[in-house]
Amino acid sequence: MRKQTRFRPAAWSAVLILAGLLLPRATAFSQDEKLDTAAIRKIRLEGLTRSHVMDIAFHLTDASGNRLTASPGFNRAANWARQQLTDWGLTGATLDPWGEFGKGWELQKSYLAMTAPYYKPLIAYPKAWCEGTNGPKSASVLLISATDSAGLEKYKGQLTGRILIPAIDEVYQQSFKPDATRYTDEQLDSMSKVEMKPVDTAELRRRRAAFNRGPMAFLNTLRAEALKEGAIAILSQSPRGHDGTLFVQGGGPYQATSPANFLDMVIPLEDYTTIQRLLKAGIPVTLDADVKTKFYTDDTKGYNVIAEIKGTDKKLKDEVVMLGGHLDSWHSATGATDNAAGCTVMMEVVRILKTLGIQPRRTIRIALWSGEEEGLLGSRGYVKKTFADPAVMQLLPAHATFDAYFNIDNGTGKVRGIYLQGNEACRSIFTQWLQPFHDLGATTVTISNTGGTDHLSFDAVGLPGFQFIQDEIEYSTRTHHTNMDSYEHLREDDLKQIATIVAAFVYNTAQRDEKLPRKQLPAPRPAGRGF
Amino acid sequence: MRKQTRFRPAAWSAVLILAGLLLPRATAFSQDEKLDTAAIRKIRLEGLTRSHVMDIAFHLTDASGNRLTASPGFNRAANWARQQLTDWGLTGATLDPWGEFGKGWELQKSYLAMTAPYYKPLIAYPKAWCEGTNGPKSASVLLISATDSAGLEKYKGQLTGRILIPAIDEVYQQSFKPDATRYTDEQLDSMSKVEMKPVDTAELRRRRAAFNRGPMAFLNTLRAEALKEGAIAILSQSPRGHDGTLFVQGGGPYQATSPANFLDMVIPLEDYTTIQRLLKAGIPVTLDADVKTKFYTDDTKGYNVIAEIKGTDKKLKDEVVMLGGHLDSWHSATGATDNAAGCTVMMEVVRILKTLGIQPRRTIRIALWSGEEEGLLGSRGYVKKTFADPAVMQLLPAHATFDAYFNIDNGTGKVRGIYLQGNEACRSIFTQWLQPFHDLGATTVTISNTGGTDHLSFDAVGLPGFQFIQDEIEYSTRTHHTNMDSYEHLREDDLKQIATIVAAFVYNTAQRDEKLPRKQLPAPRPAGRGF
Repeated sequence: MRKQTRFRPAAWSAVLILAGLLLPRATAFSQDEKLDTAAIRKIRLEGLTRSHVMDIAFHLTDASGNRLTASPGFNRAANWARQQLTDWGLTGATLDPWGEFGKGWELQKSYLAMTAPYYKPLIAYPKAWCEGTNGPKSASVLLISATDSAGLEKYKGQLTGRILIPAIDEVYQQSFKPDATRYTDEQLDSMSKVEMKPVDTAELRRRRAAFNRGPMAFLNTLRAEALKEGAIAILSQSPRGHDGTLFVQGGGPYQATSPANFLDMVIPLEDYTTIQRLLKAGIPVTLDADVKTKFYTDDTKGYNVIAEIKGTDKKLKDEVVMLGGHLDSWHSATGATDNAAGCTVMMEVVRILKTLGIQPRRTIRIALWSGEEEGLLGSRGYVKKTFADPAVMQLLPAHATFDAYFNIDNGTGKVRGIYLQGNEACRSIFTQWLQPFHDLGATTVTISNTGGTDHLSFDAVGLPGFQFIQDEIEYSTRTHHTNMDSYEHLREDDLKQIATIVAAFVYNTAQRDEKLPRKQLPAPRPAGRGF
Repeated sequence: MRKQTRFRPAAWSAVLILAGLLLPRATAFSQDEKLDTAAIRKIRLEGLTRSHVMDIAFHLTDASGNRLTASPGFNRAANWARQQLTDWGLTGATLDPWGEFGKGWELQKSYLAMTAPYYKPLIAYPKAWCEGTNGPKSASVLLISATDSAGLEKYKGQLTGRILIPAIDEVYQQSFKPDATRYTDEQLDSMSKVEMKPVDTAELRRRRAAFNRGPMAFLNTLRAEALKEGAIAILSQSPRGHDGTLFVQGGGPYQATSPANFLDMVIPLEDYTTIQRLLKAGIPVTLDADVKTKFYTDDTKGYNVIAEIKGTDKKLKDEVVMLGGHLDSWHSATGATDNAAGCTVMMEVVRILKTLGIQPRRTIRIALWSGEEEGLLGSRGYVKKTFADPAVMQLLPAHATFDAYFNIDNGTGKVRGIYLQGNEACRSIFTQWLQPFHDLGATTVTISNTGGTDHLSFDAVGLPGFQFIQDEIEYSTRTHHTNMDSYEHLREDDLKQIATIVAAFVYNTAQRDEKLPRKQLPAPRPAGRGF
C-alpha cells in the first residue's frame, strides 16, 4: 500500500482559495487509477503559488550565457544545476559522461558592418564551430549566382580576400498571423481524435539524402573553394527569420579530429537582400569583419546532469521514473525556450517534490541532457549505456526496472495535454491524470508521436518516453534556435503550470502499483539510421 | 473646357482584361464631378502594370542608405531624385533651401558587446547626433536605480569610465496579435461615420510639458552628469521593440551651435533586462564599445527636392496642385516605409503622368521634404516662405493660386480612402473620385484629421492638405523609426495601388474647373505652439 501524504482540508482551504485553485472537492476519478488528490493539491499550491521557475531560469540563461554543448556556458549551467539539485537534497547529483562529443566552442568577438556604399552595422552571428577572421579584415563582397558545384567553376580564382554571398530568390512576405499563439479547443479536439500515422522514415531518409546531394554539397564545395583560395567568410541568410530575429545553428563538424569550419555568418534577410540587390545593380559592397572564436579540446567527452530522489518502497525503490529536458542550446542567445524552459520546469518539479517532503515509492531521476541539438546525443548515450543499444537491442538489467520518462522541450507554452507516442494502453491512465488540471487548460491525450527530442531515445529501445502538448507561443516564429531565445521570452505563468502538471505525472508514476504499460519491443535498428 | 485625353475602348479592352482591371464600363458618376474616365483608365494601366515603384524604392533605400536630414545619405537620395525627375521631363527640379536646419551626422563605426560575465555581441544603434567613444573602450556597467534628478545624487563620483543603464520596470508580453494588419470593413465603415473631434492641443501641451519636466529632465541630468564625470555611454531600451526590432531616434539637439550629444545607445529589450537582472543579482557586467560618428557642418541649411509639371491651361496654369512626402528618415535602417514609400509613390505619380503625356490644366508640383522627423521642418519652411507664416497669417500671393496638397506618409500599406482633415466640403468630391478605385479597396472618406506629417504645414495656413487612409501593415509594430525599416518590408502591389490612386487624385485636382474648397482661414498661431 502506498504512502499517502496527509491532507487537512480546513487548514488548506483559505490558501487554496487565495491560490485560485479550482480543483473540485470530490473529483469523480475512475476506479482504474488511485489518484492521491491530497498530494496533487499540495503540488498545485507549491507549483502555482510558491514557484522558483524564474529564479531557476535566470541561472540557466542570463547567468550562464549560451549553453552550446561542451562550451564554457554549458559547463557553467551544468555545474550550477548540479549544485542546486544537491542543495535541494537530491542524491548523487553528478555530471555524468555519456560518451565522446567533440570540441567546445565559444565566440570571443563578432563584428560585421557594411562600409560601402555607406556604413551600416549588421546584426550577425557566426555559425557554431566556425573559425574567425584572424584579426580585422575589410573585404569586397562577391555574389555567387550558382546553385550547384558545377556552377562554381566561373568564380575560380576570384575568391581570395572576398566575402561570399550566395544568391537567393527568397522574398519576405508579411504573414498577417500572430507570432504568438495558443491551441484552440478545435485544434485540441482534433488532436485527441487523430489516428496513429506511421512515420515514413524511408521518405525522410530520401529527402535528407537529396538535401545532402543538393544544397549541402553545393555549400560544402563553396566552403572548400573559399578556404583554398583564402576568402574571408561566407554569408548566410536566416531561413524563417525577419525583423532582427535570426535562426543560427552549427557551421559544420565539431568532432575532436575535425578541422575548424570556414567562417559562415548569418545576417538578417533584410540586409542579405540589400547586399544582393546592390551587387546586381553593379554597386560594389564592402564589409568589415572581425570575428574571433575559441575551441576547447581539453575534455571532448559529453556530460549530462543526473540526480535522484531515492525511492522508499521496499519492493519498488529500485524502479526508476525519469524526467528531463536538454540543457544544451544553440549559441546566439541563451536558449531560454530551447530548452532552459524544459530544464527549469524539470528542476522545479524535483524542488516541489523535495519541498513537500514527498517520499516516492519508486526512485525519481532527473536528467538534463547535452548534445540534443546535435542529434539527441546525450540521451542516446545515456540510454545506450544504461538500458539498451537500439542497434542490437540486448537489454541491460536496468531496462526491466525502468518505468517511464517524461520530457519537456517545446518552449515556454503551458501544457495542454500529452502525446501517447503510439502507446494506446496509457490513454486511459493519462486521461485520468489530466482531470485535476482541466481548469489549467490541460485536457488532451493524443495517440500522436512528436519527434525531434530526447524522449525518442527511450522510445527507440522500447521504454515509455513521453512529451507533453505545449502551447506554441512564439516557438517556431521567434525563439527556436534564434538570437532572441532569451529570458524575456519566457512566460512565468506557463512555466509554473508546466512544472505543476509534470510534478503530478511524475508523482503518479512513482506511486502507481504497476509500472506504466509498454509498447512492443522494437527490432534492432542499425546505427546511422536515426529516428 | 478642359482637355480630354482620348480613349479608344476597342484598343484598350484586351490590355485592361490582362491587367485585371474591374472598372465598370459606364460608371454612374454624380453630375457634380466631371471625371475623365479615359485618363483614369490609362493611369490605372500604367500604375498597375508598368510600375517603376520598386526601382525607385531601391534607389531611395538600398542605394542611398539612411536619409537622416542633412546627412550624406539624404543628399545622395535627394540628388538622385532631382536627376530622375529631370530625366522624366519635369521642370526646374531643384534642391530648394527652406531655412536653417543644423548639422549633418553619420555613423562611421558601431560596435557594442557584452564581455563579462560572458561574451555576447549586442544589436545596438547610437541615437542620432551623438558623439562616439573616441576609440575602443571597455567599461563596467552601472545600474541607475533612480527616476528623478534628485535620485541621481547617490551615484555622484561613480560614473567615470562606466556605461550607465537606467533601471526599468518594463516586462515583455507577447501580443498574440499579428504584426501586419489591414483595415477591416467594419473599421472603415466606422471611420466613414465618425464625427470631427477637435484636438485638445492644450492637453497635448500639458502632457508634453509633464514629460519634459519628468523623464526628459531626468535623462538630461543624467547625460550632463555622465559627460561631466567622463562616463562612456548611456544605454536605452527600445520602447515597443522586441525580437531584434529597435526603435531609434535622435539623441538630442542638432543645431549648428549645439554641442555633440552624449553617447546614448539603443539595445534590445531582451539584452537590456538581462544586463539589469545580472546587475541586480550582483553579477558584474562589462561591455566593449567602439563608436565613431561624424558631424557635417559645411552647409547647415535644409533642402527639399522640388520639381514641376507645368500647367497648360491659359487661365489655370499658374495655379498649383502639390503632392509630396518626406524624404528624410531616421538612421538605423533606410527608412523604407517611413518614408521612402511616400516619396516612391509620389515620384511614380509624376512619372505616370509624364509617361502618359498628360497636359494638366494646373501646374503639378512634387515636393520631397526634409526635416520632417524633427518637426515637419522642411514643409513648414516651404509653406512659410511660399504661402504664409502661420504665426502671423499674412498671406503671400501664391496662397491665392494654391489648390491642394496630397501627402503619403503612413508606410507601405495600400490606400483605403482619404482623411478630409475637417474639410467637409470635399466629402462629396472625394467620394466620387474614389468610385473608380473601389475594386482596389479604396472606398472610405472620413472627416477625421490625421496628425504628425507634412500636410499639417498646409492645413496650418488654411490651405487644403490631405493624407490618405493606408493599411497599417507593420507600420507601428516593425518599421516606423526602426532598424528594420528597409526595402524588404515594402509591398510592391500596395505601392502600385497607392501611386495609381494618388495619380488620379492629383490629375482630378489639376483638371477641375474650380479649386478644391477650403476651410475657414485659421487665426495666427504664435511660434512655438506647434501642431
